[in-house]
Amino acid sequence: MKYLFSLILLFLFNLGNAQSVQSPSGKIDLNFKLAANGQPFYSVNYKNKAVVLESALGIKLKDKPALDANFEILTSKTSSFNESWKPVLGEQASIKNHYNELTVSLNNKETKVKMNIIFRVFDEGVAFRYDFPKQAELNYFIISDEVTQFNLTENNKVFWLPGDFDSNEYEYNETNFSEIDNTKINMNNGIGVKSIPGKFMVQTPLMMKAPSGLYLNIFEAAVVNYPVMHLNADVTNYKLKAELVPNAIGDKAYLQTPSVSPWRTVMISDDARDIVASKMILNLNEPSKLEDTSWIKPMKYVGIWWEMHVGKSTWDYAGSQNATNFADAPKASGKHGATTENTKRYIDFAAKNGFDGVLVEGWNVGWEDWNGNWKEEVFDFTTPYPDFDIAVLSAYAKEKNVKMIMHHETSGSVSNYERHLDRAFDLMKKYEYPAVKSGYVGKIIPRGEFHDGQSMVNHFNFVVKRAADYKIMINSHESSRPTGFGRTYPNYIAAEAARGNEFNAWSVGNPPAHETILPFTRQLGGPMDYTPGIFEIKMSYYDKNKTEQVHTTLAKQLALYVTMYSPLQMAADLLENYEKYPDAFQFIKDVEMDWDESKYLEAEPGDYVTVARKTKGKETWFLGAITDENARTSEIKVDFLTKGKKYKAIIYEDAKDADWKNNPIAYKIRTMTVTSKSKVKLNLAPGGGTAISFEPIK
Amino acid sequence: MKYLFSLILLFLFNLGNAQSVQSPSGKIDLNFKLAANGQPFYSVNYKNKAVVLESALGIKLKDKPALDANFEILTSKTSSFNESWKPVLGEQASIKNHYNELTVSLNNKETKVKMNIIFRVFDEGVAFRYDFPKQAELNYFIISDEVTQFNLTENNKVFWLPGDFDSNEYEYNETNFSEIDNTKINMNNGIGVKSIPGKFMVQTPLMMKAPSGLYLNIFEAAVVNYPVMHLNADVTNYKLKAELVPNAIGDKAYLQTPSVSPWRTVMISDDARDIVASKMILNLNEPSKLEDTSWIKPMKYVGIWWEMHVGKSTWDYAGSQNATNFADAPKASGKHGATTENTKRYIDFAAKNGFDGVLVEGWNVGWEDWNGNWKEEVFDFTTPYPDFDIAVLSAYAKEKNVKMIMHHETSGSVSNYERHLDRAFDLMKKYEYPAVKSGYVGKIIPRGEFHDGQSMVNHFNFVVKRAADYKIMINSHESSRPTGFGRTYPNYIAAEAARGNEFNAWSVGNPPAHETILPFTRQLGGPMDYTPGIFEIKMSYYDKNKTEQVHTTLAKQLALYVTMYSPLQMAADLLENYEKYPDAFQFIKDVEMDWDESKYLEAEPGDYVTVARKTKGKETWFLGAITDENARTSEIKVDFLTKGKKYKAIIYEDAKDADWKNNPIAYKIRTMTVTSKSKVKLNLAPGGGTAISFEPIK
Repeated sequence: MKYLFSLILLFLFNLGNAQSVQSPSGKIDLNFKLAANGQPFYSVNYKNKAVVLESALGIKLKDKPALDANFEILTSKTSSFNESWKPVLGEQASIKNHYNELTVSLNNKETKVKMNIIFRVFDEGVAFRYDFPKQAELNYFIISDEVTQFNLTENNKVFWLPGDFDSNEYEYNETNFSEIDNTKINMNNGIGVKSIPGKFMVQTPLMMKAPSGLYLNIFEAAVVNYPVMHLNADVTNYKLKAELVPNAIGDKAYLQTPSVSPWRTVMISDDARDIVASKMILNLNEPSKLEDTSWIKPMKYVGIWWEMHVGKSTWDYAGSQNATNFADAPKASGKHGATTENTKRYIDFAAKNGFDGVLVEGWNVGWEDWNGNWKEEVFDFTTPYPDFDIAVLSAYAKEKNVKMIMHHETSGSVSNYERHLDRAFDLMKKYEYPAVKSGYVGKIIPRGEFHDGQSMVNHFNFVVKRAADYKIMINSHESSRPTGFGRTYPNYIAAEAARGNEFNAWSVGNPPAHETILPFTRQLGGPMDYTPGIFEIKMSYYDKNKTEQVHTTLAKQLALYVTMYSPLQMAADLLENYEKYPDAFQFIKDVEMDWDESKYLEAEPGDYVTVARKTKGKETWFLGAITDENARTSEIKVDFLTKGKKYKAIIYEDAKDADWKNNPIAYKIRTMTVTSKSKVKLNLAPGGGTAISFEPIK
Repeated sequence: MKYLFSLILLFLFNLGNAQSVQSPSGKIDLNFKLAANGQPFYSVNYKNKAVVLESALGIKLKDKPALDANFEILTSKTSSFNESWKPVLGEQASIKNHYNELTVSLNNKETKVKMNIIFRVFDEGVAFRYDFPKQAELNYFIISDEVTQFNLTENNKVFWLPGDFDSNEYEYNETNFSEIDNTKINMNNGIGVKSIPGKFMVQTPLMMKAPSGLYLNIFEAAVVNYPVMHLNADVTNYKLKAELVPNAIGDKAYLQTPSVSPWRTVMISDDARDIVASKMILNLNEPSKLEDTSWIKPMKYVGIWWEMHVGKSTWDYAGSQNATNFADAPKASGKHGATTENTKRYIDFAAKNGFDGVLVEGWNVGWEDWNGNWKEEVFDFTTPYPDFDIAVLSAYAKEKNVKMIMHHETSGSVSNYERHLDRAFDLMKKYEYPAVKSGYVGKIIPRGEFHDGQSMVNHFNFVVKRAADYKIMINSHESSRPTGFGRTYPNYIAAEAARGNEFNAWSVGNPPAHETILPFTRQLGGPMDYTPGIFEIKMSYYDKNKTEQVHTTLAKQLALYVTMYSPLQMAADLLENYEKYPDAFQFIKDVEMDWDESKYLEAEPGDYVTVARKTKGKETWFLGAITDENARTSEIKVDFLTKGKKYKAIIYEDAKDADWKNNPIAYKIRTMTVTSKSKVKLNLAPGGGTAISFEPIK
C-alpha cells in the first residue's frame, strides 16, 4: 500500500470561541463556535452559501451531567491529510483520502469532563464525531441522547425511509421535506417487523436535493459500539435531530473512555455524481485489521433461493411452515428446494457457466417453525435436513471447482446464533464453505432489542470479526445498514440491509426508481447483495393468479450488475430461465465484480444512474445504465477507454417496444467497435436499462 | 437402576367440580375445585387440619385471555407412582419417588384453550404444575403473571430472604409472617447488585414453622425455560402470591405448547427432619439425560481463592482493580495470586493430602476492570495472565495426579460468556480440566435482564448442557438457585446460589444460625459449594484493623463438610493454616462426599442440624452436628452403624471454652470405640459444631 501522506499541525492557543476549516478545494466551509452558555454549534457553507445553519452539538448522559453546554475551548488544532489506500476489493484500485481536520478540545467548566469534537472536511462533504478521551473525570458512561442537529435552509426534496428501528427494507418516499410523515405511507409493504417510534422519524442515509439543485446527503460512518442514528425531522423548520436507537431499557449506548462516536456526515455537491462516487464513508473507517486478505475474493453465484420466493419450492422439508417443531418428525413434502439432487443441478450449472459459488437456503433443520413467533431456539446451524447430504455435496462442489455458500438464517434470535457461531463456522471449515449469507428476519432476541441498537451493531460486527478467525466472508441480510466497516474487516464482503430484489416476488415490490436511489443511500456504506438477474420478470409466469412482478426490464437486470456495486453478485433467477436466454445470460457470465476504476457518467437520484467500470487488472470495461419509470435516451462518450485501443462493445439493451410493465423481457443485443473517441447512444425503456461490455480487440 | 413401579389409572368422567388426592401415608389431602366462575383453586390439609386454605390457580397471558377462570373440567384422573432411582452422586444411593397424582384437564369455555393442572402428593408435601398441551387454540404464548396463591392459616415463623431478582446472597431473616418487611433489613451486607421490587417480596425456598409446631416449606422444582418464582406476602392475611421474575420488557415467560410450568411445592411435616431429608424436589425433576456419567465424580479441592478474600493476594495481575483495561499493559504488582509458582504449591499440597483438585481464580486477563460497571467484554476465558503458565501447570498437575479446576467469572456479562463458551471449554479439554466454577457477579448483560429471569434460567441450564458435550462438570456461583436440575444433568455438580462462606471475610458475614437454615432452604434444590474449612477464623489474623470473622468455631467448620451436602467440597483456607492444625485437618482429608445413606438425627431450622452419612460403597460413617449462636449438648444414638461391628469414632469437637466470637479455634479431638448400641455425647459451643468419623475396626 502506497501512502501519499502529508500532515500539518497548527496549534492555536488563546483562541476565541469560533474556529473554521475548509475543504481542500475550498468549496466547503465548516464553522464551529461555542455559544455564550458554552454549548457547541457547527454550520456548513458550500461555495459561500449556507447549507447547514448553526446546529447544536452535544451528548446527554444517563445519571451524569450532560455534555452539551458549559464548555470552554482548551485547544483547537487543524491538520491536513492526504493519503491513498488500496481496498482489498472495490470500485477502484486506489482510494484517495483527502481532508482538512479541525479538532476542538472542550472542557466542561463545571464537571471538568473533557470532550473533543473532530471535524473533517472533504471536497464532497463534512464529517464530525465526538471523542471522549481517557480521563479521571469520565470512565464508564451511558448515552441517553445525542443532541446533534442538522438544520437545513430550505424545503428540499427528500428521499426518505421511515425511521424504523427494526427494518430498512422500505421503498423510498420522494417528497418535500415539509411532507415527511410516516403516517401517510403504505405499510402493506411486505415488511414483517416494524418499529417506527414517531411520525417524523427518518433513516439515514438521507438523500436530498435543494430547490437550487444542490445535492445533500446526511449519513454516518464507522458505526462501531454505538447504535444506528436515525433523524427526527422538524418539518416546519427544516431541522433534523439525531435519534439514537435505544436498547430494551431505553439506554442508547454504553461506553468507556477512551471512545468515539461514529462520524456524522453531510455530503454536499452541485453534481449528483460526486455523491455516488464518494468514498468519504469508507475513508472515515479504520484501515483493515486483517493482515492476510488473500482469501477474500469476489464471488458470482447462483443459488437455491428465488425458486422459494416464486413458490416453486420451499425452505422447509415438510412444506408446512405450520409452526410445529421438527421434533414432530415431519414428512418430506416433495417441494423442498435444498435437496442433494437439486443442489447438484446448481453446482453443475455453476461449473458449466464459470460461477464461483452456489448458495443453498433451507438446507438445515428448523424452517418448519422459524418465523413470526419470537422463538429463541430455532436453528442450530449445523443440522442438515435428511435430504441434504452436506458431505456429498461439498465433495461434489470441490470436484467441480465450485464453492458452496452457507446460509444462516437467525430469525432474529441472535442469542441463539451467538451460542452456535463457533460450531456453525467449524462446520463451514470442515466442508470448505468460504462465505455465509446470514439473515435476521424477525424480532430480535435478546427481547426488547432492535436491529439498529448498539448491541445489534456490535453483534453484526462481532460476527464479521469472528468469521475472520475462520477466513470466512460475511454477507448479512436484514442487518443494520453498513457504514464502511468493510474497510476495517474486508471479509464483510456484502450486505442486504435495504429493500432487495426479493420484495418484487411477493409484495408491492420495488418501484423502478428504487435502484436509482440506492447508490445515493444504502450503497454509500458498503456493497449491497441486491440479487439481480431476474429474467422471468412476472410472477404470473409461475402462477396465473399472481400479479406481482419485478419492476424492471430484462436489460435493466443486466445493468444492475454494474450499477449496484458488489464483489458478491448473485444470478438470482432459476437456472432454466437463464437457459432460455443464453445470449442475455452471457453478460452475467462476463461481468466482473472488482474494479480498477469506476466512472459515474450520469446520475440523478430517483431518475437514472450510468456508470462505467474497468476490471481490476484487465483492460475490459463494463457499463451499466438504468432509469426509473421513464424512458430515457442519452449519448455517452466512452472516453474512459484507453486511448488508441479498439474495443468490441456488446450492448444489451431494451427492445424498442420494451416496457417494465407490459413488455419487460424484450431486449436486443448489438455489437459495435469503439475507441475512446466514440459515443454510444443509450435507449432505455420505461423501467429499463442498458448493459455494455467492452473487450479490447487484440 | 431398579424400578419399583406401580401405576394405577382411574378415568373419571362426568365429574363434579371438586377432586382430591391423598399422600401415600394418608396424612396429606390435596383438594381441587373450580369456583362458580370457573376459576381453579386448591387447598391442602395435613392430618385433617387446613395448612393451605383455598388458593387461586391460574396464568395470565400477554395479549391473550387469561387462563384463570371460565374453565370447565374435561377429565380428571388419579394415579399412583412408586419408583426408586439411583443418583449419580448423592446423599443416598437410592431415592424413593412415591406419590399419588391428580391430573385435572380444564377447558376454557370461551376460548376453548386447554390447560391441565397436575398435582402430586408425597408423604412430605404436595406439588403442582401447569401443563399446556399442544392444541390448535394455543401455540406460542407469553406469560404476564402467574396467579398461584399459597394462602396460609397462621402467623408462622418465617425464615425469609428479600425477594431480590438479582441476588440470593442475603442472610436469613427470622420473623413472624406479619413482620416480613424488606425496608427493615440491613442492606449494608456486602451484596453488590440488588433488585428488590417490593416491600413484601420474599424468595423461595421459604421455610416456615407454624405456632403449632408444624413445619412448612414453599419452593419449586424443575425450573426449566421459566423464570424463578418469588412470593409476594400479604402480611395481614398470611397469603403468598407467586411473582415471576420479568425480563427487560416486563414479560415473564415465552412458551410454546406443549410446555409445562415448574412444580410449585409445599412441604409439610411436624418433624423438621422430614424437610431436610426430603428428596421431593429431585424427584420432581426429569431423570438423567446423560447416558455416560462415568466422568462425573466427587471432588475435594483446595484453591487460590481465600487468599484473595483475606487480602493476601489479588485476582488481578496489576493489583489495581482500577477500571483500566489490560490493554494498557499493567505491571505485575507482586501480589497476584494465580502465579505458576503459587499454583504449583497448591498442586503439591493437593497431591500430598489426597485432594482431587485445585481451583485457581484470577488466572485470566480481565480482572483489572471486571466488576461494577456493566461492562460487556470483560474476559475471553482463554487468555492467561503472563505469570500463569497453563501448559506447564496442567502437565505438572497431571504428573501429580491432581485435576485443575477452571474458573470462569462472567461478571454478569452472559452474552459475552456465551460467545466464548465453546472456546473456553475447548481450552479446558486441551488442558484436561474436568470442572469449572462459574461466577455471575454483577448486573446481567443482556442489559435489563435479571439473574432470576427466564433467559438467565435458560442460560444456567444451557451452560450445564453445553458442558456435558465436553464432559465438564459445572459449579455455578451467583446463579439462580438450583431446583433439582442436577438430577437431569448430573454434571451440574454444585452451585453456590446463596450466601456463602466468603461473605464472612469482608462483610457483616453470616450469623451462626445461617448454616442451620440452608439445609431447609437452598440445599433442597441441589448441592451447595459453601467452601467451608476456615481454620484462621478472624480476619484480624491478617490485618489487625479488621474486625470481620467467620461466625463459627473451627470444629463447626469441620462439621459443615457433613451437614452441607455436596459432592464438591473445598478446603477453603490457606494451605499454611491447615499445616498449623494437622490433627484437625485430618478430618477434612478423611471426609467423603458421596453417600449410601444419610440420617438426619436432629434438625431445627435456625437452631441446629445433626446428620450422619454412610460412605458410598464403604462401611465408614461421618457425622456432622452444628448449632447456632447457642451452645448445645445432645446425646446421639449411633444405631445407624452396622449391628455387631465395632467402630473407631474420632470426635472433633469444640474445646470446653470455645466460642465463635471469643475463642473460635479451640478444639479437641477424642477417640472412642463404639457399636450400634452406643451413645455419643455432643457438646457444641456457641456457634460451634462436632464432626465425627466412624471407621470399622477390623
